[in-house]
Amino acid sequence: MGSVADLGDAQAVIVGVPMDYTVSYRPGSRFGPEAVRSVSVALETYSPEQDDDLERIKCCDLGDLELPFGNVATSLKRIEETARELAGTGKFPLFIGGEHLITYALVKGVLPFYPDLAVVHFDAHADLRREYMGEELSHATVMRHVVEMVGAGNLYQLGIRSGTREEFAAARQVARIYPGQVLEPLAEVLEEVGTRPVYLTLDIDVVDPAFAPGTGTPEPGGCTAREILQAVRTLGRARVVAMDLVEIAPDHDLSGRTALLGAKIIREALLAYV
Amino acid sequence: MGSVADLGDAQAVIVGVPMDYTVSYRPGSRFGPEAVRSVSVALETYSPEQDDDLERIKCCDLGDLELPFGNVATSLKRIEETARELAGTGKFPLFIGGEHLITYALVKGVLPFYPDLAVVHFDAHADLRREYMGEELSHATVMRHVVEMVGAGNLYQLGIRSGTREEFAAARQVARIYPGQVLEPLAEVLEEVGTRPVYLTLDIDVVDPAFAPGTGTPEPGGCTAREILQAVRTLGRARVVAMDLVEIAPDHDLSGRTALLGAKIIREALLAYV
Amino acid sequence: MGSVADLGDAQAVIVGVPMDYTVSYRPGSRFGPEAVRSVSVALETYSPEQDDDLERIKCCDLGDLELPFGNVATSLKRIEETARELAGTGKFPLFIGGEHLITYALVKGVLPFYPDLAVVHFDAHADLRREYMGEELSHATVMRHVVEMVGAGNLYQLGIRSGTREEFAAARQVARIYPGQVLEPLAEVLEEVGTRPVYLTLDIDVVDPAFAPGTGTPEPGGCTAREILQAVRTLGRARVVAMDLVEIAPDHDLSGRTALLGAKIIREALLAYV
Amino acid sequence: MGSVADLGDAQAVIVGVPMDYTVSYRPGSRFGPEAVRSVSVALETYSPEQDDDLERIKCCDLGDLELPFGNVATSLKRIEETARELAGTGKFPLFIGGEHLITYALVKGVLPFYPDLAVVHFDAHADLRREYMGEELSHATVMRHVVEMVGAGNLYQLGIRSGTREEFAAARQVARIYPGQVLEPLAEVLEEVGTRPVYLTLDIDVVDPAFAPGTGTPEPGGCTAREILQAVRTLGRARVVAMDLVEIAPDHDLSGRTALLGAKIIREALLAYV
Amino acid sequence: MGSVADLGDAQAVIVGVPMDYTVSYRPGSRFGPEAVRSVSVALETYSPEQDDDLERIKCCDLGDLELPFGNVATSLKRIEETARELAGTGKFPLFIGGEHLITYALVKGVLPFYPDLAVVHFDAHADLRREYMGEELSHATVMRHVVEMVGAGNLYQLGIRSGTREEFAAARQVARIYPGQVLEPLAEVLEEVGTRPVYLTLDIDVVDPAFAPGTGTPEPGGCTAREILQAVRTLGRARVVAMDLVEIAPDHDLSGRTALLGAKIIREALLAYV
Amino acid sequence: MGSVADLGDAQAVIVGVPMDYTVSYRPGSRFGPEAVRSVSVALETYSPEQDDDLERIKCCDLGDLELPFGNVATSLKRIEETARELAGTGKFPLFIGGEHLITYALVKGVLPFYPDLAVVHFDAHADLRREYMGEELSHATVMRHVVEMVGAGNLYQLGIRSGTREEFAAARQVARIYPGQVLEPLAEVLEEVGTRPVYLTLDIDVVDPAFAPGTGTPEPGGCTAREILQAVRTLGRARVVAMDLVEIAPDHDLSGRTALLGAKIIREALLAYV
Repeated sequence: MGSVADLGDAQAVIVGVPMDYTVSYRPGSRFGPEAVRSVSVALETYSPEQDDDLERIKCCDLGDLELPFGNVATSLKRIEETARELAGTGKFPLFIGGEHLITYALVKGVLPFYPDLAVVHFDAHADLRREYMGEELSHATVMRHVVEMVGAGNLYQLGIRSGTREEFAAARQVARIYPGQVLEPLAEVLEEVGTRPVYLTLDIDVVDPAFAPGTGTPEPGGCTAREILQAVRTLGRARVVAMDLVEIAPDHDLSGRTALLGAKIIREALLAYV
Repeated sequence: MGSVADLGDAQAVIVGVPMDYTVSYRPGSRFGPEAVRSVSVALETYSPEQDDDLERIKCCDLGDLELPFGNVATSLKRIEETARELAGTGKFPLFIGGEHLITYALVKGVLPFYPDLAVVHFDAHADLRREYMGEELSHATVMRHVVEMVGAGNLYQLGIRSGTREEFAAARQVARIYPGQVLEPLAEVLEEVGTRPVYLTLDIDVVDPAFAPGTGTPEPGGCTAREILQAVRTLGRARVVAMDLVEIAPDHDLSGRTALLGAKIIREALLAYV
Repeated sequence: MGSVADLGDAQAVIVGVPMDYTVSYRPGSRFGPEAVRSVSVALETYSPEQDDDLERIKCCDLGDLELPFGNVATSLKRIEETARELAGTGKFPLFIGGEHLITYALVKGVLPFYPDLAVVHFDAHADLRREYMGEELSHATVMRHVVEMVGAGNLYQLGIRSGTREEFAAARQVARIYPGQVLEPLAEVLEEVGTRPVYLTLDIDVVDPAFAPGTGTPEPGGCTAREILQAVRTLGRARVVAMDLVEIAPDHDLSGRTALLGAKIIREALLAYV
Repeated sequence: MGSVADLGDAQAVIVGVPMDYTVSYRPGSRFGPEAVRSVSVALETYSPEQDDDLERIKCCDLGDLELPFGNVATSLKRIEETARELAGTGKFPLFIGGEHLITYALVKGVLPFYPDLAVVHFDAHADLRREYMGEELSHATVMRHVVEMVGAGNLYQLGIRSGTREEFAAARQVARIYPGQVLEPLAEVLEEVGTRPVYLTLDIDVVDPAFAPGTGTPEPGGCTAREILQAVRTLGRARVVAMDLVEIAPDHDLSGRTALLGAKIIREALLAYV
Repeated sequence: MGSVADLGDAQAVIVGVPMDYTVSYRPGSRFGPEAVRSVSVALETYSPEQDDDLERIKCCDLGDLELPFGNVATSLKRIEETARELAGTGKFPLFIGGEHLITYALVKGVLPFYPDLAVVHFDAHADLRREYMGEELSHATVMRHVVEMVGAGNLYQLGIRSGTREEFAAARQVARIYPGQVLEPLAEVLEEVGTRPVYLTLDIDVVDPAFAPGTGTPEPGGCTAREILQAVRTLGRARVVAMDLVEIAPDHDLSGRTALLGAKIIREALLAYV
Repeated sequence: MGSVADLGDAQAVIVGVPMDYTVSYRPGSRFGPEAVRSVSVALETYSPEQDDDLERIKCCDLGDLELPFGNVATSLKRIEETARELAGTGKFPLFIGGEHLITYALVKGVLPFYPDLAVVHFDAHADLRREYMGEELSHATVMRHVVEMVGAGNLYQLGIRSGTREEFAAARQVARIYPGQVLEPLAEVLEEVGTRPVYLTLDIDVVDPAFAPGTGTPEPGGCTAREILQAVRTLGRARVVAMDLVEIAPDHDLSGRTALLGAKIIREALLAYV
């Protein structure tokens, strides 16, 4: 992925975050970063759509964070610290999950450097619950915490097609939600965020399980691989300052196409944002 | 699935029909009902598209019928009796197959209560043969029997993209066939059936095997998951009185997305028809 | 498999019997014959254990019987007729299932030519029920029918490790049963059958699912691949006149080793019995 | 499993414990209980080896505990409470994991009722670490906690073939360890435990991954399915008062044979201990 | 596939080319021809879109070529000879790969009979490198060799979405490239080729891996199954004189839908071109 | 694997050799080295059987060789050179295949430094053909070439259970063959090789496919995982100077146990030989 560089020289930094303990259905996204790296050898560095090549970008892959499996609090703290350190360097940090709860820690770590941060959120699920099975910190509540940090109105949710009645009601109050749509709302989103810094969180299950079967809570009826790639490129017109790609779970990805899509999303993102 | 209710109170009743002995290619749909139930825990009860929640509906799952494996005649008789009993109660019966031949017994059981029944049929295959390998009762002949029961012109076939020359000729004579189309013809179908009672039979292979790989006779070139969900909702404008969902075969559904799509189809159907 | 020969010249004849409609758990053995043929290209024709080569034997593969899926009576009749015709020629017939119920028709077809037939039965299951879910003809009742045809005391059951209390009681009455044992009892069996003609029926699930995962009703605790191969060779000291190998189900045989074991059993059997 | 009974009448109680958040390699054992139940329909209730039938035993399956995914402390507390309540009734409790850490809570809940408890532990791993990646409560430390509760010398470890140098040293100090052996040491173990109450914890990975591929941390070189079944039966000569079966992970169990072996272990255990 | 005919009478000839040794990522396409044949029994001979039936066409399947595994030069020579012989008979030859490098030998064998040959190329990859890892003959360089044979401007590349910067530059010089597009450019292509003879080479990875997961180098973002089938039919308006279908790799095609799509492509192609 | 060391300091060196182009059945072993490395994180460094720890050994993993896919001659040359360079340093080289043909190049590279080399060969197949499908350099001929290099009588073949009549005849002439046996002959082998340098080549298919399904040409009837591990350790009494482990093919290793067994073999080998 990109021309290999030391951390000091790097313009972009990739970090794997192998946390998957609060998922309610199928765990396994801890192997997501490894799977994405493994298949990325099958991907060209050149993007014909952007007529640009990853060789242009100095990129450093820090590998996976070492996390204490099952200890949510300690894990989140370590993730947040990593995000803060990287955000402080001005390099573009790209995190590969792991489950979606990591976004809570990542935004928390990045936010001090970008107080007017907007969050763009591609996902099948709203993730706006107040609590989930008695827990406040869960992959199902993560965007609730995020919106509390960045402030109502600064969260843009695209592709959402699953949630409780309460979550959708909340989304209409505190976020801008575009149910089931991925490409169509982007013009509006781009106009609204303008030149503000943007954090992009992309849950792979926004894509239909036909294109991305390797995920923990697949939800039929999503967008195509082509559409999400186009959406990632289009967001290049905004000022994306950090990004995560979460919920790739290789156990259900026997053909490897989910990991491949993940690698391609990362290529397009690096070329568009760095 | 829905708020659990006793049979007496229920507005909707779900029955598994684990018959798969006349299939000509891959058997295994007998495990379809179990697979749909198993994955349904991963599905929300709320439908954002319909802004409605399954908690509204009192639903009773009777489990799977006990069938003598390999005995077609006895199995069909038992299925027909179950359908008749349920239809007589005025509750909405929803059957999960199993192979498509069960529709013959189901329509036979339901028809006495709705003499002017129209049948809407989503499928990749016309299923209109006169006989198949010497057998008159087969998954490949089932719609021929159905049309003989409900009368020529009362069968609407959508999504069909496979069959013999004779079947397509027959379809143009005794049925209304819309080859390969799923959403486009619905306006016309809705107008034609008007307020008549409608039986909906949905063979999951109408969906492309990319979205529904877990089926016995996959046929490339079908519709998307999103389209079939939309079609199921649109039919809510008609008076659907009973329904079956057939040919989900978990053995070829390693990611579980076919069963998940089946569960979601059922959710949307219950919300739209009950 | 062997030197290809016309039916007229052949010393051994292979027939696939793709029937699997009465199975109670996982169907799919209809694809067993095709799977065995497909992997057999990866197998040498030479057997080091027997220092013998299939090139010695003129063998004719008739392919799969055409059966009306779901019609048990017609299928059994057609299978029986095929067995009778082949047995009448004096050639060695070897049938690849398909489910175990076919053995009923096969023994019925072969018996007239060998009135003093003994049956050696390798299986995890006793298959001695009187009826199964109301059906008398079922994979679970097949050996009851067989023992009624060949007479009490002429059925030898090896490797059995599953059944009802009644089946094990019946086995001790009408058969010679060696629970869980495959190799140890062979000396005794060989002595008892002496020079009488022997029909060998081998259900692949006699082997532990570690070695043969591709079967419809796997039962942990079976013998190894090495043991069943040795047992098949040892039976060469008896006068085996016909054989079937049943219940190979490729859907659960992702590595192909069950089909490979099946092909190797057939090689060893042909070399030992023809 | 067994004749279904209400909790009040039951002699044995089965509880699923779907916790898998502290595993260090492959999660997924949360689906273990469901998988074991699902395949158990393919298993006879009669055990030929014990000439006994589950119909003799009144058994109640309480389903899976509801656990807050990712919250280790709350989960362990709820598990412990359940174990304590059941142990207080004098019924035989049998827990299906889930990961091995649950044994800590289970023994903690059961111990007050059996102060002189001995623990028999079948496993590939010693699980005797003091801490694992900074965590004291982990599947890799669980037997350290157990031995601290039941006292040095009261833990019997069979089949162990993996661990650190420190763990094996610890095992020789505080436990009785029989590396790699499953059946051979049982006579000695039986003599030592005598009539004392025994808690049996069985990690399915004690079995070789050929026989039990569906587990989180497979370790080549284990015992066979036949051996573990025999070991479970042999322990019937001791006074086993409670039991758990852990680390069955269906995602890697494509043929279902690990879940089937689990179901058969449970059948043999219930017949031998209740 | 079609009415079976002797080679002498045949109008169309199918040849399997099981070569896969130069692939850089996942080998396994050598089993492509066998997989396509195996699933083709599940396909009707009638095409509703073309209202035509394969029974009209006398077709001969010559089986797979025998190739010396690992010997690229000898294999290519044998493939070229076969192509030349068949092209000389005026029958329509259809080759099933195997890897894409075989197209070099196939075009070389066919070209002498059609000096003004145009090549239409559906693929995810440009395959226009000068050398790949030091090798000039590779699946990644094949279209470079082809364009040198047929001349600049006579190669039409559709669906391409992966390659190096150099390959895309080369494509714009020596070929007509339509990046990512499959159906839209066909009108222009048809007009340009006019009545000239056309060789069609179709790499299955032009289709998105959701629809065709069974291939060696899947590339997310491709066309649908429906689109490629429509494209194949549309090309029937040109004078297609030979064709290959390459890179179907069954190991990653667990549901069999890639092989099925391959079989359907062949059916539509035979009906459209013969 | 072991304490990581620079090449200069290392006592042992691991090299992946991703060549798989001459295999006749299933390719895919090129991904063997990567799979073994990936799963090795799940393995302890301590061996209870040897009471020794990999931390004792300074080990350097050079990664995979870069090979021109499909070019057999160049690949073999590069492999041979690597083997020669490493053998000249006195470090222990351990090669992970890839297909078995690499052993030809490896022994060729190592031999100059150990003129009186004996070769111990664990395999299901004799690999002693003179040519295979017209090719002299093939995975099926590799041991013929090896024995020509090291001289008749210096090749010890264990576990062999497949080959042609000619191969077994050749084995008795030019090699010491122990058909089907792995552990029993070791005492004799150890006595014969005495203090001579030994090259160990271990084809994973010597193990039964139940324990090692992930291989190109599985052959039912092999040894267990436990036996091969014991054999590897026992060979520690000889003077093993180099080693290869070949034919691990991850595509058919869905549970990962073949790669895990490979990693454990390597651990035991390094501890026993370095």
